[in-house]
Amino acid sequence: MPLAAEGRLPAGVPRVVVERLPLYLRAVKGLLAEGVEVVSSQRLGEVLQTTPAQIRKDLSYFGRFGKQGRGYNVTGLLRVLSQILGLDRVWNVAVVGVGRLGRAIISYPGFAPEGFRIVAAFDADPNQVGQRVEDLRVQPMEELDATLRERDVHIAIVAVPASQAQVVVDRLVRAGIRGILNYAPTHLQVPPGVTVRNIDPVLSLQAMTFYLKQGRG
Amino acid sequence: MPLAAEGRLPAGVPRVVVERLPLYLRAVKGLLAEGVEVVSSQRLGEVLQTTPAQIRKDLSYFGRFGKQGRGYNVTGLLRVLSQILGLDRVWNVAVVGVGRLGRAIISYPGFAPEGFRIVAAFDADPNQVGQRVEDLRVQPMEELDATLRERDVHIAIVAVPASQAQVVVDRLVRAGIRGILNYAPTHLQVPPGVTVRNIDPVLSLQAMTFYLKQGRG
Repeated sequence: MPLAAEGRLPAGVPRVVVERLPLYLRAVKGLLAEGVEVVSSQRLGEVLQTTPAQIRKDLSYFGRFGKQGRGYNVTGLLRVLSQILGLDRVWNVAVVGVGRLGRAIISYPGFAPEGFRIVAAFDADPNQVGQRVEDLRVQPMEELDATLRERDVHIAIVAVPASQAQVVVDRLVRAGIRGILNYAPTHLQVPPGVTVRNIDPVLSLQAMTFYLKQGRG
Repeated sequence: MPLAAEGRLPAGVPRVVVERLPLYLRAVKGLLAEGVEVVSSQRLGEVLQTTPAQIRKDLSYFGRFGKQGRGYNVTGLLRVLSQILGLDRVWNVAVVGVGRLGRAIISYPGFAPEGFRIVAAFDADPNQVGQRVEDLRVQPMEELDATLRERDVHIAIVAVPASQAQVVVDRLVRAGIRGILNYAPTHLQVPPGVTVRNIDPVLSLQAMTFYLKQGRG
């Protein structure tokens, strides 16, 4: 989240750089799909609407890429970016909260192709437990710890109401979850070593209106 | 988006500061709900897990708040933050794409209380047109321009497949939309003066796995 943007990682890579890497990865995948084999930082900059200098600087945190004046090998860049981001493996994911939002998340076709496999769904509501969502059976919270362990789950998606989010997250952290994608519109407290990302359309709209307002004078 | 994070606004307020203001606003609303009338930057920092210095510096872009040593008046801070962000009014919003995601967005109860009113829904699919989603009738794309004008819509939420997103966005921009909340997993090109925010859970997960991987050694 923005509030931690000033922080640096143990490895010395600024957080804002890490945030940009998935965008680079997506651009590189797009180029590869177009059959591009070598790409200049100039061209990458055009695709990503940033400067070549920014791209060279960001990538320099991770060693040397490409040869001076020859551009980057696209396949190589894809491989290295995947490795840096830990995406050269499949990550199993659990969803907590299977209301309308949770169901939309479970049905979203964009996760699996990127290596995120939703393997479990939980809800505290007895009316939801036992229902099927896609090919998952909604499980009660009592089965959380055992299921996360059995299915090697390290990431959870939280889609419960804001009022319940912190309790659910505390429980997930105790169960060993270290990455949380939070859809509840509330600020979560987590111990060091646990990463939270917030998906919050209201916060995004609220930062947007600042600019819209400027434009209107 | 992160790629523009280095940019500065015409008014000289860094983009990262603008991104933090909605978080301040939410924290202030929470304090007010708890009955807190005056808050120190120390306390705000605890709530937001940042430093008091950061908060004082961020707010200093917008003039003087509070008195030295006495903290901020919570009601006053709420009012001023709302004004700065352009949230002292209602913003009408249109949703384009009423598949499962679009429907979940239209049904999401979190927008209206924050002043974002979804007043129109569009889809290119004739099978969707004419259906009702909540109290909206799904309209064909042909009605876009006239409806946006009539209903004073300046913000659109894009929930169409990635392959169609740029075409839809070009059309929205021509129709006068200046703020776009994009749920399609693709990078959109927009002219200067149009603000895009991306809601992309995969990008969030991909930045998260970087940290999870570090932790695993």
